[in-house]
Amino acid sequence: MDKTVTLAQGNGGEENRTLISELFFRHLKNDTLQKAEDAAIIDDGRLAFTTDSFTVSPIFFAGGDIGKLAVCGTCNDLAMMGAQPKYMTLSVILEEGFETRSLERIVRSIKKELAQNGAQVVAGDTKVVPKGSVDRIFINTSGIGEVRVPGISASGIEEGDAIIVSRDIGRHGAAIFAGREGIELESEITSDCASLWPMVEALLEVGIVPHAMRDATRGGMAAVLNEWAEASSICIEVDEGAIPVSETVNGICEMLGFEATMLANEGTFLLAVDPDDAQKVQRILRDFPGNEAAAIVGEATMSYPKKVVLRSEWGTKRFLDLPTGELLPRIC
Amino acid sequence: MDKTVTLAQGNGGEENRTLISELFFRHLKNDTLQKAEDAAIIDDGRLAFTTDSFTVSPIFFAGGDIGKLAVCGTCNDLAMMGAQPKYMTLSVILEEGFETRSLERIVRSIKKELAQNGAQVVAGDTKVVPKGSVDRIFINTSGIGEVRVPGISASGIEEGDAIIVSRDIGRHGAAIFAGREGIELESEITSDCASLWPMVEALLEVGIVPHAMRDATRGGMAAVLNEWAEASSICIEVDEGAIPVSETVNGICEMLGFEATMLANEGTFLLAVDPDDAQKVQRILRDFPGNEAAAIVGEATMSYPKKVVLRSEWGTKRFLDLPTGELLPRIC
Repeated sequence: MDKTVTLAQGNGGEENRTLISELFFRHLKNDTLQKAEDAAIIDDGRLAFTTDSFTVSPIFFAGGDIGKLAVCGTCNDLAMMGAQPKYMTLSVILEEGFETRSLERIVRSIKKELAQNGAQVVAGDTKVVPKGSVDRIFINTSGIGEVRVPGISASGIEEGDAIIVSRDIGRHGAAIFAGREGIELESEITSDCASLWPMVEALLEVGIVPHAMRDATRGGMAAVLNEWAEASSICIEVDEGAIPVSETVNGICEMLGFEATMLANEGTFLLAVDPDDAQKVQRILRDFPGNEAAAIVGEATMSYPKKVVLRSEWGTKRFLDLPTGELLPRIC
Repeated sequence: MDKTVTLAQGNGGEENRTLISELFFRHLKNDTLQKAEDAAIIDDGRLAFTTDSFTVSPIFFAGGDIGKLAVCGTCNDLAMMGAQPKYMTLSVILEEGFETRSLERIVRSIKKELAQNGAQVVAGDTKVVPKGSVDRIFINTSGIGEVRVPGISASGIEEGDAIIVSRDIGRHGAAIFAGREGIELESEITSDCASLWPMVEALLEVGIVPHAMRDATRGGMAAVLNEWAEASSICIEVDEGAIPVSETVNGICEMLGFEATMLANEGTFLLAVDPDDAQKVQRILRDFPGNEAAAIVGEATMSYPKKVVLRSEWGTKRFLDLPTGELLPRIC
C-alpha cells in the first residue's frame, strides 16, 4: 500500500476497497463485519446498523444539501438490507465562523428527510474546530433499522435474475460537478438525492423480496454490479442501450470524458429480482415521482462468472470494470 | 444566537448547550432524544445508542491517541447508562497525504481498546478529502450497548446521595494542552483516557446500582455536576479539598489559570450512589490501576437546589458554575 493516503482511496472503487480490506478489515475483522454489506446485521438478525460521514462540497447543491444527503445516505443503507430506518444519531463537526443560518437550513432539511423515512434522531454530538481545521461542515449519521425481510444480499443473486435500475443514473455526480465548477448547462441538472425506503416498502408490501438491492453511491452503478458479480460468483450482463441516462448527464459525460455508470447517485438503486417479478417491480418503481425511467437493464448469467458485461446496441460486448482513480472527491 | 458558530459553542459548557437546544433540539425533538443523556435508550429500554466525533489535536498524545479515544468516548457513553458496549461503527475522514503508518497505528489502538470493552466494529466508512479540507484525521464512532440495569439517570439523584469521583481529575485536558503547546514539565502528565465498562461491570456484579453516572469529558467535573443538579433539582455540595488532583495537573492549572474541575477527562467518571454503598464503591474503584485516588467528594443536599456548591477547606462556600468560554478546542 502507498505510504500516504490518496484521494483515489476514497473513490468507492478499487483503491478504496484495498484500503478497507488491508487496513481496517485486517485488524478489526469479525464475523458480523465480514458479512456486513451496506449495513451490518446484528442482534440475531433483528436489526441493521450502519454509519456514513458526509463531506460533500458544495454543501448546498441542486436537489439537496449535506443535511438531506446525510439522512438519505444512512437510511438508504438500511433500506437496501430490507430494514426500516428507525433510529439515527447525528454528529456535526463545524468550522468556527460557519453561518448559523446555513446550519439551521441544514437541520430543517434533516428533519424533513427523516419524516420520509419515519425515523428519528435520538442522540447527537456537536464539535466546533478552529478556522482551517475543517472545510465548513462535516456530518456523520449512524442508523439502526428493523429488518423486515432477512437475507437480501449481494451474494444472493441467482442465474436468470433480472437486473433493474430504479431511475436514470449519474445525476448526483453530475450535479455536484456542475455546481462545483460553475458549469453553465442548457437545462439544469438536479441530484437524485432521495430516500429509498418508501420504494422498498412498496415492494415488500406486495410480497416482492429482491435477492439483492444496493444504492449506487460512490463508484456508481459500475461499482455495485462488480461487487455483486464477485459476491455471487455470477456474470451480470447489461444492455448499454437500456440504461436510463438523461440527456444532460450524457452531455456532461461526453464533455468531460466520464462514464455515466461510474458517476455517483444518492437516490438510485439497483435490484436483482426473480425474472417473473421484473415487470411488476419496474411498474411499482415508476409510480414514484422521479423514477419514471426505472428499467430492466440486464440479467445474471453464467457466461463470465465474477465479471460485468456491457452489451452495446451493435451486438459487441465489453467488460465494465470496477472504477479506479480519483473520480470526484467530496461527492458525498 | 450569534450569526456564526463560535469555538465556545463546542466547549461542553453553557454555549454548547444553547446551540444544541436552540438549534438541534428545537427542530429534531422527540421523546427519545429529549430523554437521552450520554446515550439514547431505545428498543423498549433494551439498548443504548450513542455517537461521538473526534477531532483531537495532536492525534497522538501522552496516554493515548485519536483511535483509543474514539473507542473510549463512545463505549464510555454507553457504560454510563449501565449498558454493556456491544457493536460499534467506525467512520474515518482522512486528509489526502495522511501517513498510512499513522493510520495503521490508530487502527491497532482501536482494536486493543475494543477488547477492553468486549465490543466489535461491525460497519464502517472511509472518506478521503483533498489537502486542506480537514486537519489530518477525524473519526466518528457510534455504538450500541445492551442495557444491563435500567434507570441510571442524571435525574435520579436523591438527597443524601454520596458523590464519588473515580480518580484524579483533569489529566486529559492537561496532557493535550501540554502536548499541543510543547510545555516542558518536571513530571510527565499522561491522559486518563480509558474504558470505563470494566469498572461499571464490577459495581453491577456486586449488586451496586449507582443512581447516576457520567464521564467528565468536555466541560469537566463542573459540567457534569451542574447538569446533575439541574436535572435532579438538587444541590450538590463538594469538598474542594477532597477532589483528587495530581500535583502536575495542579501545577498546569496554576500556571495557566485553569480550574481543574473544568478540564476535560476521558477515563474519569462521577457517580451518585446510596450513601450506604459509598465506601464499597470507593474500594472497588481503587482496585483498578490508575484509580487509586477514587474519592467520596461530597453529597446531594437540599440547600441550594439546582446549584453546585464548593466547600473550601476553610469553611467558606462558593458556587461552581457551568463552564463558559472557549476552554480548549479540539480536546476530543
